[in-house]
Amino acid sequence: MQPLEHIIYYDKTTGIKMTTSTRFPKGFKLATARAGFRYRNRSDLALIVSESPAAGAGLFTTNLFQAAPIKVARDNLEKSSGIRAVLVNAGQANACTGEVGISNCLKTLEILADLLDVNPEDILPASTGVIGDHLKMDLFEKNLPGLAGNLGFSTDQEVARAIMTTDTYPKTSFCDVRLSSGEVRFWGMAKGAGMICPNMATMLAFILTDLRIDRGLWQQITASAADKSFNALTIDGDTSTNDCVIALAGGGSGVEISGDKDLKEVVSGLDKVCADLAYEIVRDAEGGTRVLRIEVRGGVDNRQARLAADAVGNSPLVKTAMYGGDPNWGRIIAALGRSGAMFDPQEVRVSLAGVEIFALGRPVDMDRDSVFEPFEKPRYQDRDPAWPG
Amino acid sequence: MQPLEHIIYYDKTTGIKMTTSTRFPKGFKLATARAGFRYRNRSDLALIVSESPAAGAGLFTTNLFQAAPIKVARDNLEKSSGIRAVLVNAGQANACTGEVGISNCLKTLEILADLLDVNPEDILPASTGVIGDHLKMDLFEKNLPGLAGNLGFSTDQEVARAIMTTDTYPKTSFCDVRLSSGEVRFWGMAKGAGMICPNMATMLAFILTDLRIDRGLWQQITASAADKSFNALTIDGDTSTNDCVIALAGGGSGVEISGDKDLKEVVSGLDKVCADLAYEIVRDAEGGTRVLRIEVRGGVDNRQARLAADAVGNSPLVKTAMYGGDPNWGRIIAALGRSGAMFDPQEVRVSLAGVEIFALGRPVDMDRDSVFEPFEKPRYQDRDPAWPG
Repeated sequence: MQPLEHIIYYDKTTGIKMTTSTRFPKGFKLATARAGFRYRNRSDLALIVSESPAAGAGLFTTNLFQAAPIKVARDNLEKSSGIRAVLVNAGQANACTGEVGISNCLKTLEILADLLDVNPEDILPASTGVIGDHLKMDLFEKNLPGLAGNLGFSTDQEVARAIMTTDTYPKTSFCDVRLSSGEVRFWGMAKGAGMICPNMATMLAFILTDLRIDRGLWQQITASAADKSFNALTIDGDTSTNDCVIALAGGGSGVEISGDKDLKEVVSGLDKVCADLAYEIVRDAEGGTRVLRIEVRGGVDNRQARLAADAVGNSPLVKTAMYGGDPNWGRIIAALGRSGAMFDPQEVRVSLAGVEIFALGRPVDMDRDSVFEPFEKPRYQDRDPAWPG
Repeated sequence: MQPLEHIIYYDKTTGIKMTTSTRFPKGFKLATARAGFRYRNRSDLALIVSESPAAGAGLFTTNLFQAAPIKVARDNLEKSSGIRAVLVNAGQANACTGEVGISNCLKTLEILADLLDVNPEDILPASTGVIGDHLKMDLFEKNLPGLAGNLGFSTDQEVARAIMTTDTYPKTSFCDVRLSSGEVRFWGMAKGAGMICPNMATMLAFILTDLRIDRGLWQQITASAADKSFNALTIDGDTSTNDCVIALAGGGSGVEISGDKDLKEVVSGLDKVCADLAYEIVRDAEGGTRVLRIEVRGGVDNRQARLAADAVGNSPLVKTAMYGGDPNWGRIIAALGRSGAMFDPQEVRVSLAGVEIFALGRPVDMDRDSVFEPFEKPRYQDRDPAWPG
């Protein structure tokens, strides 16, 4: 394998070319290839390799129709004693493809396993794109050797770009935290939940860290971070056949968690990366014009608060009002009222952009313009410029 | 009171002016007035009076924010030993109006009770329109005497028109059934669930019959009919603060249910009227262009089938595909898969307009144009012409 020092990436905010030694988690290599599954003139095949067997955590779509790569990744996570690679393709979802889909998926892993000299069950697959079509196996066979050969020569931005479908920019996030015995780095990338013409949305997220951690605990804190971020976002209220979050802890830093303070730092680092990526997914939603954050305070418990937030966030009437910049308290309280959450309607207060518009069962007199203003369409100023994929 | 023979109405399909003796349930009188709550040059106040104390059935919104008339109607249904009248106003919902809203609503019933010489608790109120504003009590006080005086001189179409908000035509349905001891008539009217600018949807439905029936049984079969019709429709997935179905059985025919065959006839008559009205509500949805009927076969039970149908019917992705005339099986199966309904994905078959597009876990090769065609925008040819309201 290539030495890790060869990994380069571009810092999203500064645009500066950096090397792994600065912020990318130690012990991972990246590669991309242009297989041409659906897109021209861009990479559509991405590979993440962990130098050492990594603790793998996975969260998969709850949709009963599960794509072949979801089934295989779930299986491999069970079987593997240490994840060595993640293979992602964009353009073909390999969903609703039956037994052929499963065997195609397994075949791609076998080819890659040979090239990387690892076990096939130590590789996790992920796919996004059009559902119903079978994988173009000839393109996999042709391009996997080049992909493996390119290992260590792709930046994190290139990998994040290779997994895009209708996303307009690659989505990544970095975070480092200091534990008692040293620094640990987190990196994540995601592709968005915009609709994939002519089919449905898929959200994929991949998190890497050089933390050394037990697999059970890693799964637990990954699930908790996802619950607060990816599971708390909604765009069109639908759940794809291919949604997944895969998180690898490769241990490249040599740093372990020692005590509650360290654990808290790790949780906060992972939470930050997941929250960043979830925000980017919503911000880049296909056809989306505004990002709303729904804050519920004083709920009986988290479940009740989530019921209330979900009803408001998924209400087409609320969405259309927000799209139109209309501080329509009626639609918000109607959604709250049917949410199934337990609360006293006479105690409800609703604020939009800091302006209270409903209090104690009655609308509040307000200057509607003062509410309108903060609903500006977000400026996509920090979208990355076109990038060589 | 005016003799019942004075009631006239217009048959919706033939447009012919008819009298009660033909199809309108015996023992009810109708009236309308132009109070000017929100609309000009049309009636916006409607009154139904039952000659005899009627068995009243009611189904009310499950929204925690309940409009004042919902609370009062629910209360009165409990207290009353026989419903004598229903008072409906359009333009003002009297929702989110607190204690003042309740006392305003009660006041309107007291005034009307005096005019009709009945008890206030024997009158059921219903309101639809803008929420948050207090009822214009001066307009009620000014117009209730005229409304009561007009009793027996309004057609069923005029009453159905007076309760409209953004509906584009009045919605009524007739049905008569023959029981062992004679004919029984059902009539119903509804206003739609299009969004009410600038606030939310409200669905109101009123059913009348001259059947003589026990109140408990009447509530039971009304609830069952509503479950199969009004509770099975979705437009924007929201539930208003004012939704209600009120059904009065006045006994004017003198005919009672005797035996299972009669009961079956009554159920079918009520089902037909409710199904008709539910269809009209969907067809006239504000901004709506297509009506979809979702049929689920082979579900484990009704609850499971309903979960599946609701997920598909409420999916924005499915709706946008249907709007675009796109037989997009992917969005339908994605909604099914996340619906919570229990089923084997490999056993699922999906047909659109009679054309199978997905079978046994895989898309079906099809001529997409053969599916497109039946998705024609419904022709509103049988909308009533403009009517003197």
